[in-house]
Amino acid sequence: MTGSSFGKAFNITTFGESHGKAIGVTIQGCPPGLTLTEEIIQKELDKRKPGQGILSTKRKEPDKAIILSGIFENQTTGTPIMIMIENKDADSNDYMKNSTLFRPGHGDITYFAKYGLRDFRGGGRASARETAARVAAGAVALCILKKYNIKIETYTIELGGIKVKDISLNSKKTNYLQCPDLHALKLMEKRIEQVKQEGDSLGGVVEIHVLNAPAGLGEPVFDKLDADIAKALMSIGAVKAVEIGAGCEAAQLKGSKNNDQITNKGFVTNNAGGILAGISNGDDIIARVSIKPIPSIKKPLQTIDEQGKEVEISTKGRHDISAIPRINPVCKAMMAITITDHLLRQKLNQ
Amino acid sequence: MTGSSFGKAFNITTFGESHGKAIGVTIQGCPPGLTLTEEIIQKELDKRKPGQGILSTKRKEPDKAIILSGIFENQTTGTPIMIMIENKDADSNDYMKNSTLFRPGHGDITYFAKYGLRDFRGGGRASARETAARVAAGAVALCILKKYNIKIETYTIELGGIKVKDISLNSKKTNYLQCPDLHALKLMEKRIEQVKQEGDSLGGVVEIHVLNAPAGLGEPVFDKLDADIAKALMSIGAVKAVEIGAGCEAAQLKGSKNNDQITNKGFVTNNAGGILAGISNGDDIIARVSIKPIPSIKKPLQTIDEQGKEVEISTKGRHDISAIPRINPVCKAMMAITITDHLLRQKLNQ
Amino acid sequence: MTGSSFGKAFNITTFGESHGKAIGVTIQGCPPGLTLTEEIIQKELDKRKPGQGILSTKRKEPDKAIILSGIFENQTTGTPIMIMIENKDADSNDYMKNSTLFRPGHGDITYFAKYGLRDFRGGGRASARETAARVAAGAVALCILKKYNIKIETYTIELGGIKVKDISLNSKKTNYLQCPDLHALKLMEKRIEQVKQEGDSLGGVVEIHVLNAPAGLGEPVFDKLDADIAKALMSIGAVKAVEIGAGCEAAQLKGSKNNDQITNKGFVTNNAGGILAGISNGDDIIARVSIKPIPSIKKPLQTIDEQGKEVEISTKGRHDISAIPRINPVCKAMMAITITDHLLRQKLNQ
Amino acid sequence: MTGSSFGKAFNITTFGESHGKAIGVTIQGCPPGLTLTEEIIQKELDKRKPGQGILSTKRKEPDKAIILSGIFENQTTGTPIMIMIENKDADSNDYMKNSTLFRPGHGDITYFAKYGLRDFRGGGRASARETAARVAAGAVALCILKKYNIKIETYTIELGGIKVKDISLNSKKTNYLQCPDLHALKLMEKRIEQVKQEGDSLGGVVEIHVLNAPAGLGEPVFDKLDADIAKALMSIGAVKAVEIGAGCEAAQLKGSKNNDQITNKGFVTNNAGGILAGISNGDDIIARVSIKPIPSIKKPLQTIDEQGKEVEISTKGRHDISAIPRINPVCKAMMAITITDHLLRQKLNQ
Repeated sequence: MTGSSFGKAFNITTFGESHGKAIGVTIQGCPPGLTLTEEIIQKELDKRKPGQGILSTKRKEPDKAIILSGIFENQTTGTPIMIMIENKDADSNDYMKNSTLFRPGHGDITYFAKYGLRDFRGGGRASARETAARVAAGAVALCILKKYNIKIETYTIELGGIKVKDISLNSKKTNYLQCPDLHALKLMEKRIEQVKQEGDSLGGVVEIHVLNAPAGLGEPVFDKLDADIAKALMSIGAVKAVEIGAGCEAAQLKGSKNNDQITNKGFVTNNAGGILAGISNGDDIIARVSIKPIPSIKKPLQTIDEQGKEVEISTKGRHDISAIPRINPVCKAMMAITITDHLLRQKLNQ
Repeated sequence: MTGSSFGKAFNITTFGESHGKAIGVTIQGCPPGLTLTEEIIQKELDKRKPGQGILSTKRKEPDKAIILSGIFENQTTGTPIMIMIENKDADSNDYMKNSTLFRPGHGDITYFAKYGLRDFRGGGRASARETAARVAAGAVALCILKKYNIKIETYTIELGGIKVKDISLNSKKTNYLQCPDLHALKLMEKRIEQVKQEGDSLGGVVEIHVLNAPAGLGEPVFDKLDADIAKALMSIGAVKAVEIGAGCEAAQLKGSKNNDQITNKGFVTNNAGGILAGISNGDDIIARVSIKPIPSIKKPLQTIDEQGKEVEISTKGRHDISAIPRINPVCKAMMAITITDHLLRQKLNQ
Repeated sequence: MTGSSFGKAFNITTFGESHGKAIGVTIQGCPPGLTLTEEIIQKELDKRKPGQGILSTKRKEPDKAIILSGIFENQTTGTPIMIMIENKDADSNDYMKNSTLFRPGHGDITYFAKYGLRDFRGGGRASARETAARVAAGAVALCILKKYNIKIETYTIELGGIKVKDISLNSKKTNYLQCPDLHALKLMEKRIEQVKQEGDSLGGVVEIHVLNAPAGLGEPVFDKLDADIAKALMSIGAVKAVEIGAGCEAAQLKGSKNNDQITNKGFVTNNAGGILAGISNGDDIIARVSIKPIPSIKKPLQTIDEQGKEVEISTKGRHDISAIPRINPVCKAMMAITITDHLLRQKLNQ
Repeated sequence: MTGSSFGKAFNITTFGESHGKAIGVTIQGCPPGLTLTEEIIQKELDKRKPGQGILSTKRKEPDKAIILSGIFENQTTGTPIMIMIENKDADSNDYMKNSTLFRPGHGDITYFAKYGLRDFRGGGRASARETAARVAAGAVALCILKKYNIKIETYTIELGGIKVKDISLNSKKTNYLQCPDLHALKLMEKRIEQVKQEGDSLGGVVEIHVLNAPAGLGEPVFDKLDADIAKALMSIGAVKAVEIGAGCEAAQLKGSKNNDQITNKGFVTNNAGGILAGISNGDDIIARVSIKPIPSIKKPLQTIDEQGKEVEISTKGRHDISAIPRINPVCKAMMAITITDHLLRQKLNQ
């Protein structure tokens, strides 16, 4: 069915595999009269680009955004915006020899179970490469949010078990790990080097922070803002947990502590993460995602092939050591798309 | 828009406020020829019923399921099944005196921001009462799952900061808290008594466990099984975090540890929580939700009214001390609905 | 799937069979702050009520609208509005004896083919009774349209082969057939009497006329306004053709004649029926539906039973002779729902 | 919103303007394991290609189908299939001089009203060029239908007021007008020549005939098979009326005549057009569309510009004289998509 579409008022439909001709996204519901160019999209895409820093794959994708429709004289026309990104540097040879193996931690075994066949080149549709289409769509959403002065920041608050103790957005901007605590950054970098030697990989935690979102976004019952954020973020490949505001910690607080008291200057605390009963309350919206370590590692692991035969696998393809920081712009994009969707939906109540 | 609908192949649409005439649900996509009676639904509804145990509100709702359509001679016909639950014991008087106050931790302030007006009686649409409709729909989903031998268990693994150390489903069945560890149970009960005296409330953690789900459920990219589970569970009022498998802990594991290795007898571990690349792998599906403490407490808190005037509020309505254990059957229902939706969707690939 | 739902911004979901406990509709997307009472809905429902005039069934349904949710102090709250209509006068005995026969022109044979079983009492879900839920939802849509000064008129322009030559809305209001031409009316009444004697039934044509719809409603490509109108009207049981503007006649005109020329006072003609490229042009919107004769007739016809045995059938249940005029408010309701849906959707472009 | 998407189980999303870089379609829900190549799609696309026969525009589009995703080793993988068609021969100069005029019979005035701006080059999104994406998607649907032995024929039964008297599919295949009556064909050709001289254009009627569709397709109430067919066909630019089976004529028949009697060999007649109560009955499915004349004509007409100034317009762009026969494969495609959608949906009841 429509599992590659997301959003109701601001709706995106993506397509593409790691080693097909191209990936891309069709955006429906972008209002007319918005300035939009390939350069604006490219700027966001570049943040996700591989080949940056010590964690990253050697695959060099130019990841060039090409707008095929929906724009006239640099303005959105209100009709579908199609953004295509060609697959230029797809090298399938690495994958051929493992083509019948099910890589642990990967979708190989589940795609095979689901469809009875699979495009094994680079993970096919399950490749993290599909997230480039999300970032392209997110760039359009961010243009809309900008008009409302809504901003989204993402930063790494944990990597390989090392947690930040301080959040400074200025510090975040100085490093490719997008770590807002320079002391923690040093420990993280050390940890990465160590794990790289071991042929292993790391997970971490990313926080997403939305500023200036108006009160009133989100809908009762199922399309709650936090429910849609949870889906948006959990749909990103490596994410294993989504928290809103106090998140897991809320389970341990008493009501008198967890409740955000209200004065005529606003909320005293923000355990709610800016969302009450599924609707934004005007405070900052805060979400966190826990990211599992990259499953493709050099360290040999036990697995089976399509015939059920047991074999050992060691992945030597071009892979990152951690989904952080390349996953950060993806989280930002998914949050932008979700907020935009509800921002537009709220027009229907006005 | 359609924020009160959930699911694509198995689709539910709920309606109703705490103090309206009735609440209910219309179910589309239930296959024909399934045995379904009001008794079957009632059995699940009774598990959510208030007035059970020491944590619970005194409101006595018979919560009687009435099937209005879609059934002929005790069998589903394939057409929409409408289940109505009348509101019998709605006493609005408690709410009248606080009708212009925004209760901290509640949707009062956000519904008012969203719609410009609100049904303040008992939380209106934001009342936990709406979850009865979810449980009714879940009962239908459970009938479908039963045909496939799929079972769902929920149990309380944390309450007021006390965590279970052991999970015994037999133990769980002995107590209304649905706690699978009798030692932890005693500590939890003590904690509840103490907090009750303080006029405060508690949160906790519920785990949802799906047995015998086939491999192949879930769709690439956005409608991943874990993404839909995350939305389904986060849409329940009190939930502030959703974890799948290793969840938050996955962020701290190395790839070699987090990856579930595969032998010809199956997966060696289950950090994935039964889901790889968004598609079920045939192992048990495991999710956890962190639940915030009930916001309505006797302890006085600071708030404002609709005019922005600062006032103190102490909620003396009929409220539970913790959303646990009444939230457990709601979690079960939402999981059942999500699994059923994807079970039916998978027919389209066959 | 979701075949009992219609509309994207203004979304309705209906349920109910002819002989179940009740039928009804859940409306999502109705803006908050609209005055709505059971009386307002009842007024529209009464126009569809059986037992009026010489064409009609003897079944006496009070068809009483009961609002179960979404209204507070006579105002819409923005949350789902559920309207229920109980089935009071359902007499299944008439149907029992034909329970295994497939009535010609009815859905008996197709429901059986689709689901493998069927609720044979009164047509079950396929009964024209389901249209009462449409009319109830339409009444809500009409309230919204009224705020924008948009009006909808329906009238009978053909019955049993007799066509009107003149359209006078004043004349229409004088007769239960809703015929706007009093001369044609007399011929129609004569025709009805004659066919009643024969134990046969009649079809006809209804025109739907929307006044004051703004330009800009409808969307490119698939959700064109005329495409959605076509679906809305064709989904009414007895409808076999839908025309927009010049309709079938447009096929015979040359471009120079069919094109509506434009002056600074507006369009010179209205062959387009108020819709160009699927979007309203500000002129009156005009649609027509061709309605087949009621299939349930006394005259004996050839059919088979569930086992394929050939039998003769003569339907002696309580049936109308023509779907006109009771279908007129149903056409009005479906047009109102479609226009409202697009009126709200257009807010997203503003 | 999602006005460029169609279908629930078999879902297509199109994009593209007449003079943008490309048009195309993303198909979700195509089952895995189906053989699909660019050649298969090209074959259908070529039937819609301009530059064939005497009615047609001189624009020479290669209209080459490029599959960007969803195929691996010539088989569908179950993931989205994206088909792109580049715009090679788009010459915007013809349109520049009329860029602020509203062409009568076109969407210029309505797109401007809707969005406040418009891509005036060649009709932008409203151009008939978007139908190439429908045909590409239809080619995929036809592959699915072929597996079930379901066939679709379209033929021209009226052109410029000349009606066929006989339907011979063999005759149809001999001529580019797809006219199944060689006597009528001659009169049609004569009529075309005459109107061409006048600088005018013609409309007509196309019939769509589905063979071997199983009983049971379509859903109660709104997603009736005929309702979805009506929407599918009415969404094609030039269509002004959709009829099913006896269509408009059904309004004039008596019930005893219109009812299709049933014997153990099947239905005696097919006034229903193969659909009863919105569900296919196993007989041939028959629909007809009335097509308005091409609005772009040389003959001068009265219109206004964006400022409301009255001017005369004569369209000298490269245009067909009639939408027939190029619209025929578009009708076939839309029917194929609709039947496929319901064929897959019916799996959910099994």
